[in-house]
Amino acid sequence: MEENEVNDQASFAVFSGDMDKVMGAFIMAIGAATFDMDVTMFFAFWGLKPIQKGNLTGKTFFERLLGLMNRGGIENIGPSRLNFGGLGRWLFKKMMKNNDAYSMSELLKQAQELGINLIACQMSMDVMGITIDDLIDGVEIGGVGDYIDSASDSKFSLFI
Amino acid sequence: MEENEVNDQASFAVFSGDMDKVMGAFIMAIGAATFDMDVTMFFAFWGLKPIQKGNLTGKTFFERLLGLMNRGGIENIGPSRLNFGGLGRWLFKKMMKNNDAYSMSELLKQAQELGINLIACQMSMDVMGITIDDLIDGVEIGGVGDYIDSASDSKFSLFI
Amino acid sequence: MEENEVNDQASFAVFSGDMDKVMGAFIMAIGAATFDMDVTMFFAFWGLKPIQKGNLTGKTFFERLLGLMNRGGIENIGPSRLNFGGLGRWLFKKMMKNNDAYSMSELLKQAQELGINLIACQMSMDVMGITIDDLIDGVEIGGVGDYIDSASDSKFSLFI
Repeated sequence: MEENEVNDQASFAVFSGDMDKVMGAFIMAIGAATFDMDVTMFFAFWGLKPIQKGNLTGKTFFERLLGLMNRGGIENIGPSRLNFGGLGRWLFKKMMKNNDAYSMSELLKQAQELGINLIACQMSMDVMGITIDDLIDGVEIGGVGDYIDSASDSKFSLFI
Repeated sequence: MEENEVNDQASFAVFSGDMDKVMGAFIMAIGAATFDMDVTMFFAFWGLKPIQKGNLTGKTFFERLLGLMNRGGIENIGPSRLNFGGLGRWLFKKMMKNNDAYSMSELLKQAQELGINLIACQMSMDVMGITIDDLIDGVEIGGVGDYIDSASDSKFSLFI
Repeated sequence: MEENEVNDQASFAVFSGDMDKVMGAFIMAIGAATFDMDVTMFFAFWGLKPIQKGNLTGKTFFERLLGLMNRGGIENIGPSRLNFGGLGRWLFKKMMKNNDAYSMSELLKQAQELGINLIACQMSMDVMGITIDDLIDGVEIGGVGDYIDSASDSKFSLFI
């Protein structure tokens, strides 16, 4: 892995906070990591939700309002379709469990155990009033330059 | 095509079941195939809809409910915006016809005739209760590893 | 830049007309351009909105209806989530301003000043009844082949 690491990178820009898309991102990222690829997940905007602790965020009125309307935490996010006020999230979790699929928290844990680089977008954090203390442990903070670097060196890079 | 196949691949992870995005995916995939690229389309989650027959799917209560709420079939899917209970789908089809653009079924047929690899995601099928019998003919079933393989060997890979 | 231009390209297929995703696309494209990459942004479907002037478009009844329901112009588009009839757009603009982030118009201007290639998808324009006169100055018109070309020569290519 040390010699041709540059050629074996994969990167994911996770922009969506929808449960189904985030799940897809983690499944592909974990798949790439089990293939010995060096994987980076860059979380921006709504994509910050799965790496948030789920506490109330923000200091200003606008930030608090946004945090309230748009609660983070990987077990709190709902699917992009058919959510129906939480019913969809429950339905999906039920069906995933019935099929022995990993839960969202398990996917996140597995990603961390496999050494996937989890990077939170600084600019998004600033705009949304999210601080490092609002994020789960083991997440680094980076800028758009870090993403461009990683994407340029990757065999494939997806925007999710 | 046999000699430098590796350098001439393009791959598409079709995760969306929205008519407009699926149409975009097929138009780009067909474009790449007409440029003699070896093209793979990997259909996951809502993206299974365009390669479903459109019949009722699922065995368990949850799967049947999902199948009912979320009917597949390439001519049944609506756009991501302005659908208004089917009006948008009709409007788009009308406008595409007026402009001599290909219909969704024609795009699918063309993709198959050009030899584009259509792969359905096994895990998504399991979670959603969709079997091979619910899919159109000529589709293969694959796992996330197949997608990673294909994306890694592609000149470009898009998540749609 | 002339010698190894081929290795230093990045391309973006902007399919979404959502303020947040379009902003993400511009921020990444500008980031890549400041890294001396040759950047192409290909605008298709809803993605045409940020490069429209914002006037009423279309000649047929359907096209006018679509133009009316789906007004273009980079300062008119709303976020993919939490828009609440324009409140979200206002909220985001407010928060971006408070954090000294660039406005949408400033991002567009910066992209043009950095020489980013802005290409409008011919087929999307035809289907939606949008003409070159409805687009801002400095935009070229191209087909799917132009996108495939650009994506194939790019270090990374994202579908947004």
